[in-house]
Amino acid sequence: MAGESHRIVVVGAGFGGLEAIHHLKGAAVEITLVDRRNHHIFQPLLYQVATASLSTSEIAWPIRHLMRGRPEVTTLLGEVTGVDATARRVRLKDGAQLAYDTLILATGARHAYFGHDEWEPYAPGLKAIEDATTIRRRILIAFEKAERETDPAVQDALLTFVIVGAGPTGVELAGTIAELARDTLAPDFRRIDTHKARVVLVEAGPRVLAGYPDDLSDYTKQSLESLGVEVVLGAAVTECTADGVIYGGKLLPARTIVWAAGVRASPAAEWLGVPADRNGRIIVEPGLTVPGHPEIFAIGDTVSLAGPDGKPVPGIAPAAKQAGVYVARVIRARLAGDPAPPPFRYKHQGSLAQIGKKRAVIDFGWIKLRGALAWWIWGIAHIYFLISVRSRLSVALSWLWIHTRNQRSARLITQGGDEDESRARSG
Amino acid sequence: MAGESHRIVVVGAGFGGLEAIHHLKGAAVEITLVDRRNHHIFQPLLYQVATASLSTSEIAWPIRHLMRGRPEVTTLLGEVTGVDATARRVRLKDGAQLAYDTLILATGARHAYFGHDEWEPYAPGLKAIEDATTIRRRILIAFEKAERETDPAVQDALLTFVIVGAGPTGVELAGTIAELARDTLAPDFRRIDTHKARVVLVEAGPRVLAGYPDDLSDYTKQSLESLGVEVVLGAAVTECTADGVIYGGKLLPARTIVWAAGVRASPAAEWLGVPADRNGRIIVEPGLTVPGHPEIFAIGDTVSLAGPDGKPVPGIAPAAKQAGVYVARVIRARLAGDPAPPPFRYKHQGSLAQIGKKRAVIDFGWIKLRGALAWWIWGIAHIYFLISVRSRLSVALSWLWIHTRNQRSARLITQGGDEDESRARSG
Repeated sequence: MAGESHRIVVVGAGFGGLEAIHHLKGAAVEITLVDRRNHHIFQPLLYQVATASLSTSEIAWPIRHLMRGRPEVTTLLGEVTGVDATARRVRLKDGAQLAYDTLILATGARHAYFGHDEWEPYAPGLKAIEDATTIRRRILIAFEKAERETDPAVQDALLTFVIVGAGPTGVELAGTIAELARDTLAPDFRRIDTHKARVVLVEAGPRVLAGYPDDLSDYTKQSLESLGVEVVLGAAVTECTADGVIYGGKLLPARTIVWAAGVRASPAAEWLGVPADRNGRIIVEPGLTVPGHPEIFAIGDTVSLAGPDGKPVPGIAPAAKQAGVYVARVIRARLAGDPAPPPFRYKHQGSLAQIGKKRAVIDFGWIKLRGALAWWIWGIAHIYFLISVRSRLSVALSWLWIHTRNQRSARLITQGGDEDESRARSG
Repeated sequence: MAGESHRIVVVGAGFGGLEAIHHLKGAAVEITLVDRRNHHIFQPLLYQVATASLSTSEIAWPIRHLMRGRPEVTTLLGEVTGVDATARRVRLKDGAQLAYDTLILATGARHAYFGHDEWEPYAPGLKAIEDATTIRRRILIAFEKAERETDPAVQDALLTFVIVGAGPTGVELAGTIAELARDTLAPDFRRIDTHKARVVLVEAGPRVLAGYPDDLSDYTKQSLESLGVEVVLGAAVTECTADGVIYGGKLLPARTIVWAAGVRASPAAEWLGVPADRNGRIIVEPGLTVPGHPEIFAIGDTVSLAGPDGKPVPGIAPAAKQAGVYVARVIRARLAGDPAPPPFRYKHQGSLAQIGKKRAVIDFGWIKLRGALAWWIWGIAHIYFLISVRSRLSVALSWLWIHTRNQRSARLITQGGDEDESRARSG
């Protein structure tokens, strides 16, 4: 590329970052895309990796492969440690610096423990591929240990699975773990009855899927209960330990805990020294720029923004993608010397959550759906949004086997990457 | 099961152990199958996981799922630490003991460094799923680092991949890494030319695929060279370090080394205190029993046995399977009070190795094949021997994409399980 091209650095290859790059195709720019990982993941289905339904490669694609047809995009595997907004440079961990004319921060969020990071070893969250394989390993190992355990109290704790937080991820995890225990694993064990596994969904608020209409929340709770999930509402978790979860002043002995109760933004606000909300999200201008820095955009889960109705823009894939499209439009307008587009307007297309086989809830706003039809729409929509024909075929094949034969192909316990686990558990 | 059933403990769920259990179906026995891992792997395709061609779940199945239809078989995830042959008990790491009437040891082998275990951090071998993902990570990270490296000497070392040992695994790895660099990765990198990656196959002996006829070895060497692999024969590796490989007194700077040069049997001989060959393999009786213990069978890669022609039975899947079938027959005969079957006779069905796309060699004994036809037979045979329709469809789909579009779906760098790596590499 010519040295005079407008240099854009994009940090983060999630939905927002990729969509911005996609919509900059053909513009006279030189783009550097930096991510800590070599792969983009389809986060809406990450819980299916955690529950052995899908394998990792079905929902993850090498970032540089996605950029194969874009010679003006250079992909770098690297960790950003700071931004020098004055010199317009991004600093990487190994000391390298990337100069930019425009910076797009699309760095996402991690799960958060409300100031209790010491709970993480006991209650992993679900954001990266490694989180999913860690949770998968813990769930599968719990059943294996239970099969060999002779102490009934320990066996009960091994067969108790607690999910903290009843948002979409918590609901989907709880429903799928229940089906895994009852349908998939039951014929494979000899000494334990996997139907007796307890799946407990603990939520501090008054209902599940708080963002959904009341009747869909009710339906979801009933559906989960019919799958055998115990739904505990209005119960704030006050501690997670190697022994279990404490809520309402009582310990529920459980060896497997999954955290789905909260997220915290990436440290992008700290890199810039700009105002953030209590979850660390950058409070951006209506045009998605960082206050005082029109050349720095921030999008997706790492920003806090109110929609036109005053409600916060949700931290979901379509919102990040819309922001990516918007930022590309603003950059194109600037390069062309056109007037700036009007402020970003988030358009909510709908909320979808799967509860279990042939059960899902959808809130399109103008229509609410639940049950089998909602499940079909959920499945088709998710396959449609996967990248590449190959992944669509592969996921369709995996789902066909799950739904017709209760077989989950990714029931692999693999070692490593889980030092926290060995530290946390002595059993 | 009734307490009086004949109790069989099978250690190891590889090809030999599973085949023995398969052929004991319907016998009045109570079987306990113990393995350190929860999954059986299809080892002949493990190198395809190491080279990002297949994902882990395509060649691995949960052992207890395979035993789903066999209520008399109990599967345990556990590590055997010893055998008390007098009391007829298998000791597990957690202190538990398993009583047996008949014991089948099918514990396989690990790669071996001829007394140089200190090389392992620099030159991982390929036996377990984790080995494959470690090698995959190292290969992919080497390209990522090379893309960012500014020092040409370091970049060259990052783009040099050394495979030690030119048996089937070494040949298959070398050919596939060369194709990965040239076909799959080339369009994805901007700063480096992946065609310049060096793949060096180092062999101490005088030819590649020593177990094959001379003309197939020659064809394999030429094919590898046409793929760009440098084949170095008669060169014994004298050291593996973080900087590279030393052979012929010279250092070849390389950041990625894969060990395919030798194996050592599991410690089964040590558990029993019985004679072993120099690779630690139990020298079994012609009836596959351990000397002095007619109730203990040992099969597969953990034993040393001469075939009827005096040549050693090779450490390949068909040999382990045939031994498993034989042992089941002997046990059935004993239970029925029938005379003992004649000694085990290994029947060699053929040797197959893939070199690259549309290139393979096959030695059936009565006919030798090479090139495209051999490759088709190789592919069909491997798909045929996979367990389950699901895996066959999935692998066929993956291969279709590799061969038509050069896409390898499992190009994921995931963290963890690789402490050796961080210890070994400072770069």
